[in-house]
Amino acid sequence: MLYITRKETFNAAHRLYRADYDDKKNLEVFGKCSNPNWHGHNYTLFITVAGEINPETGFVINLKDLSKAIQEKIIEKIDHKNINLEVDFMRGKMASTETLTIAIWEQLQDEIKRLGARLFSVKLFETENNFAEYLGEK
Amino acid sequence: MLYITRKETFNAAHRLYRADYDDKKNLEVFGKCSNPNWHGHNYTLFITVAGEINPETGFVINLKDLSKAIQEKIIEKIDHKNINLEVDFMRGKMASTETLTIAIWEQLQDEIKRLGARLFSVKLFETENNFAEYLGEK
Amino acid sequence: MLYITRKETFNAAHRLYRADYDDKKNLEVFGKCSNPNWHGHNYTLFITVAGEINPETGFVINLKDLSKAIQEKIIEKIDHKNINLEVDFMRGKMASTETLTIAIWEQLQDEIKRLGARLFSVKLFETENNFAEYLGEK
Amino acid sequence: MLYITRKETFNAAHRLYRADYDDKKNLEVFGKCSNPNWHGHNYTLFITVAGEINPETGFVINLKDLSKAIQEKIIEKIDHKNINLEVDFMRGKMASTETLTIAIWEQLQDEIKRLGARLFSVKLFETENNFAEYLGEK
Amino acid sequence: MLYITRKETFNAAHRLYRADYDDKKNLEVFGKCSNPNWHGHNYTLFITVAGEINPETGFVINLKDLSKAIQEKIIEKIDHKNINLEVDFMRGKMASTETLTIAIWEQLQDEIKRLGARLFSVKLFETENNFAEYLGEK
Amino acid sequence: MLYITRKETFNAAHRLYRADYDDKKNLEVFGKCSNPNWHGHNYTLFITVAGEINPETGFVINLKDLSKAIQEKIIEKIDHKNINLEVDFMRGKMASTETLTIAIWEQLQDEIKRLGARLFSVKLFETENNFAEYLGEK
Repeated sequence: MLYITRKETFNAAHRLYRADYDDKKNLEVFGKCSNPNWHGHNYTLFITVAGEINPETGFVINLKDLSKAIQEKIIEKIDHKNINLEVDFMRGKMASTETLTIAIWEQLQDEIKRLGARLFSVKLFETENNFAEYLGEK
Repeated sequence: MLYITRKETFNAAHRLYRADYDDKKNLEVFGKCSNPNWHGHNYTLFITVAGEINPETGFVINLKDLSKAIQEKIIEKIDHKNINLEVDFMRGKMASTETLTIAIWEQLQDEIKRLGARLFSVKLFETENNFAEYLGEK
Repeated sequence: MLYITRKETFNAAHRLYRADYDDKKNLEVFGKCSNPNWHGHNYTLFITVAGEINPETGFVINLKDLSKAIQEKIIEKIDHKNINLEVDFMRGKMASTETLTIAIWEQLQDEIKRLGARLFSVKLFETENNFAEYLGEK
Repeated sequence: MLYITRKETFNAAHRLYRADYDDKKNLEVFGKCSNPNWHGHNYTLFITVAGEINPETGFVINLKDLSKAIQEKIIEKIDHKNINLEVDFMRGKMASTETLTIAIWEQLQDEIKRLGARLFSVKLFETENNFAEYLGEK
Repeated sequence: MLYITRKETFNAAHRLYRADYDDKKNLEVFGKCSNPNWHGHNYTLFITVAGEINPETGFVINLKDLSKAIQEKIIEKIDHKNINLEVDFMRGKMASTETLTIAIWEQLQDEIKRLGARLFSVKLFETENNFAEYLGEK
Repeated sequence: MLYITRKETFNAAHRLYRADYDDKKNLEVFGKCSNPNWHGHNYTLFITVAGEINPETGFVINLKDLSKAIQEKIIEKIDHKNINLEVDFMRGKMASTETLTIAIWEQLQDEIKRLGARLFSVKLFETENNFAEYLGEK
């Protein structure tokens, strides 16, 4: 069993808040991330797949295929977008790093199975100081 | 003459567009950065000051003072904000990296003079792949 | 189950040696790290906690709380300090990266439980070339 | 149980291709990596060993010994070399990151046992965007 | 006057040697870089252009155009190639970082003039420890 | 004219203080850096030399020679040392980044002249957030 990781990056705007909180409570719980006029990040995404080496190619997965899958399922939908308003797979969800990490897992899982490998980990850096990682349900 | 640099970071949302362009032209000139729903970046800022070493302290400038000046004049005004809508020193300007770099210079120049040093360079990374640098008017 | 990581940094001085070794043996076992006049590092610390997402906030843990706990329990006690002489939770221990990693785990474990999450990993970089990781007793 | 990681780097040339594929198929499967005139990378290698802390030294493994083992078994054989033509432990294998990662594991496993620790992970970055990791057979 | 920098990366194989040196002298002068079987690097390239801000767009140069110029004139010709054998603009030259830096300058200078800006600096990292910079003839 | 840069790193302990200040004033001026029990950093040093390309080798300077000069004149004297107590070229000076940067320049200037190049810049990072640069007297 071998693990292969591909790094991709995207930029997006977001805001953390609840409509059922007033401004004071939003600020208290979400801090500066509740700014009503949006702010944004350069996100860095690490997708790790697990699999056996194909003896013919020496590959677990062709990275061109993995990169194309991440582009189509994630980057094209979220890069230079507003996560709260424009990203279909985040509709109705909190735009937190945690929630986004799981949503990316759900977007990629079937596609990577179709490519003959298994999604092992989604790791998402919001800044260089904070990141979330999801390994799926055990 | 010695050069001292302090790195700071901030997150902000922005949009590149002109009201006098239609959507098609905005997309053509500004690409994905013209997205009407905003997007954002983790900006990295390098402020370089020039000066002589103070023989008593061994410092050109006390970095606590430089950091405090950058916090008050820049970071508190722009971090987790919308550059087009909320940053007073960017009012009426294009929210491009270039314009922002010069605006940061203008915000800091007098304050650094008051601290006994000379602002030498403002370097601003919008992403790890793009940055602008301004050295003032010669 | 989701994993959230917070990065913090600190500077500290240390020395690796045993009082019951002579200088020659200290140099042989600990190399340049046994320098009797101390030397230091910029340490980088990654604290990973595990937990379920709180459906109300979208958070596993509020990073402001996690950061505050790391500040109070670790950074304020060790930053700009001498690990051998001044850090209470390292008293009587070898000032190696390994020992320090476990001591940081012990400092944080209860505090993170109080915040409603579970400490999953402490990873400590002494330099960009060496790091230790501890996952607790299984 | 503690995990200690040592980072090393090397440069090497390689080419991905199969003699039983024609040029068109090699290009289709291996892309630009099939260039017949070789190309190369700055590889970054992370070797993680697992073990108990030695109470006398505070070390899981003496990093001087670990670094020496990696130098002798890997770096001296591959640095500034052609992986397809010159590296004995890669003879007859595809020069993919995946295959190389496993071959490095096999080169180091016994040596690290002799040093009193257990090889836990070999992680190899071909570029900053792609890496493979191998944890051995379970 | 403002400076805008674009970072690009490429991989390539090379060898440093002179046909009029014997193997011993090549090894003495060029060290491990004279390996007859090639080796390679992940190069990182920083292209800096200088210009005035266009008041209509807020840009010195449209980074899409700059990136496209670097792709066509440099990356497509050198990425995943053998610098000694395959790169037309390096024919008959030593494949040193210094020589390559100047050759990249010569490849880009006219193209960037056509885009309305002035090439200010070419900075080329062969590894993270070594880089060359060229500012043109004064 | 071409510029070649070599990066080196070292660890060292230091303390910022004046014997003629009391503890309160030392803390006020030098902050946590005045800790009487020392603290330390992983310093990163960039040495840039300027020169013409030697047409026979394609080099401005042989990096093996430059690296050896930096090792002998700087790294061997300061790595894993206490800057205030043990580094001959810092005797009687404040152990600030600024002062150290100029002292490194003075250590290297003649040696690099002997190697046929000209020292152009010494850039010293105390942490990833602060660095000093010295270009010599004009």
